[in-house]
Amino acid sequence: MVKLLVVGSVALDSVKTPFGQEDDVLGGSASFFATAASYFTEVSVIAVVGEDFPELHLAFLRQRGIDLTGLERRPGKTFRWRGEYSYQLNEAKTIATHLNVFETFRPVVPESHREPEMLFLANIDPELQRTVLEQVRRPRLVACDTMNFWIDGKRPELLRLLKDVDILIINDGEARALAGDPNLVTVARTIQAAGPTTLIIKRGEYGVIMFSKDRVFAVPAFPLEQVKDPTGAGDCFAGGFMGYLSSTGNLGDEALRRAVVAGSVMASYAVESFSLDRLRLLDYKDIEARFKAFKGMTFFEDI
Amino acid sequence: MVKLLVVGSVALDSVKTPFGQEDDVLGGSASFFATAASYFTEVSVIAVVGEDFPELHLAFLRQRGIDLTGLERRPGKTFRWRGEYSYQLNEAKTIATHLNVFETFRPVVPESHREPEMLFLANIDPELQRTVLEQVRRPRLVACDTMNFWIDGKRPELLRLLKDVDILIINDGEARALAGDPNLVTVARTIQAAGPTTLIIKRGEYGVIMFSKDRVFAVPAFPLEQVKDPTGAGDCFAGGFMGYLSSTGNLGDEALRRAVVAGSVMASYAVESFSLDRLRLLDYKDIEARFKAFKGMTFFEDI
Repeated sequence: MVKLLVVGSVALDSVKTPFGQEDDVLGGSASFFATAASYFTEVSVIAVVGEDFPELHLAFLRQRGIDLTGLERRPGKTFRWRGEYSYQLNEAKTIATHLNVFETFRPVVPESHREPEMLFLANIDPELQRTVLEQVRRPRLVACDTMNFWIDGKRPELLRLLKDVDILIINDGEARALAGDPNLVTVARTIQAAGPTTLIIKRGEYGVIMFSKDRVFAVPAFPLEQVKDPTGAGDCFAGGFMGYLSSTGNLGDEALRRAVVAGSVMASYAVESFSLDRLRLLDYKDIEARFKAFKGMTFFEDI
Repeated sequence: MVKLLVVGSVALDSVKTPFGQEDDVLGGSASFFATAASYFTEVSVIAVVGEDFPELHLAFLRQRGIDLTGLERRPGKTFRWRGEYSYQLNEAKTIATHLNVFETFRPVVPESHREPEMLFLANIDPELQRTVLEQVRRPRLVACDTMNFWIDGKRPELLRLLKDVDILIINDGEARALAGDPNLVTVARTIQAAGPTTLIIKRGEYGVIMFSKDRVFAVPAFPLEQVKDPTGAGDCFAGGFMGYLSSTGNLGDEALRRAVVAGSVMASYAVESFSLDRLRLLDYKDIEARFKAFKGMTFFEDI
């Protein structure tokens, strides 16, 4: 049985930050998500790559135990993204997007993968997210991401999708745009009324805030001296978050909180190097150590 | 003996936000600081007002138990500030500043107040901050605030002052400008090398991060549905922070953490109304309740 299924992109990224530049490195939301999740659980990917996609990257993903049954290889080139960050590192400037084989991507969930326990719909066209949801038996947990491009351009399709989503994971600008309000408490109420019982808002260097049924949880980001490349941090967060939930099977509020911290741990490691380079060197002890560091950074005694 | 002494401004503010407008209401860093601190400890103010300063405001401060021995009343008008906030509420746009009697303010610490246990130098000219420090016997704890205007315009004077300061409390833009680096970990190291052993960075709606000797503590801001007026939030934070420290006398890291939360509680109440209006209605039970809410919002179990 598939424990955690993700649909998203597998891409070749070219990224320039004040700390360096890398070309055609492993990227894409599904790559980041699955790699982060692989530290906690079994994860299966639905995505597409072109003929040019390096065997090396597939070997890495497989070596992480990631199931690639649902990764199509199609004629043409792999999805490519080129972006730049300034010293603020808070927002990528997209220099070029070549969808290539991604342009005609119609995700197909293999017969063997149609009963996933949990499903993550990474940031792709909400109509494609919907087709994946329609191909599977209703998972125990469905989470999704989106972006301003879909919030502005495919709002009705996105709102229709959200009715069937349990957890929406987006950044603060997106959350405000989706709800049409600057106040996050109001934003949370509006989005929760649209479907998701839980809203997780990613705030970059400021961390994450989660609005669940009637509680709020917030955790700051880990202050790092070396932030080399923020690309994929949000997807690594989601991967750590859902990977942890999948590993415990517990969906109570305390488990969701630990999952938010696990996601924050994975995001904090992801940004320390380009692409997935830091995660390549990571073992579970590192994750435990940083989880403890998050605890040490946020704990205080009663007054 | 004076427990907590503050030097700063007592002003009449006119503030417009998307939620209303108020003219000539009680403002100024020392007013906000002292009112917030008064819930925890005895606090004495060094400041100046003009002949036009309403007796009503003095009565309010006195009723809060605040010692006004060091509040001069001088010929002329009280310091006036007029500002506006947009829906983002993150930064005030100053419409007008009339220094009035504040222009020639030379703080004089009364003989009876020259051995304060703790001292807060609110955001005024670093040369004036220094004259206050020179008039008192070295307090057990000296904290100060500043702003970009002094960081840019009186950098040598500010750096000289910082050598004698234990805790610097500023916002993130100011911290980055002072240290000349975008990375907060580097910023902290640079500022700590200049004097303060502890750096507290206020991040508005994202909360506060504290760098102490070899530890980091961060707490998110309390998500509020109603933020009416952010004016004075930073000074209320500092007042709650130092008021709490003064009440316990403990300066260990755990106490500093609780103090950061106490300050965050006071700031969260301050922004719920214009001027000090929410604090007028507050009692210590409200503070305890919100402190608990901060705990509830940030706590997570070990992985």
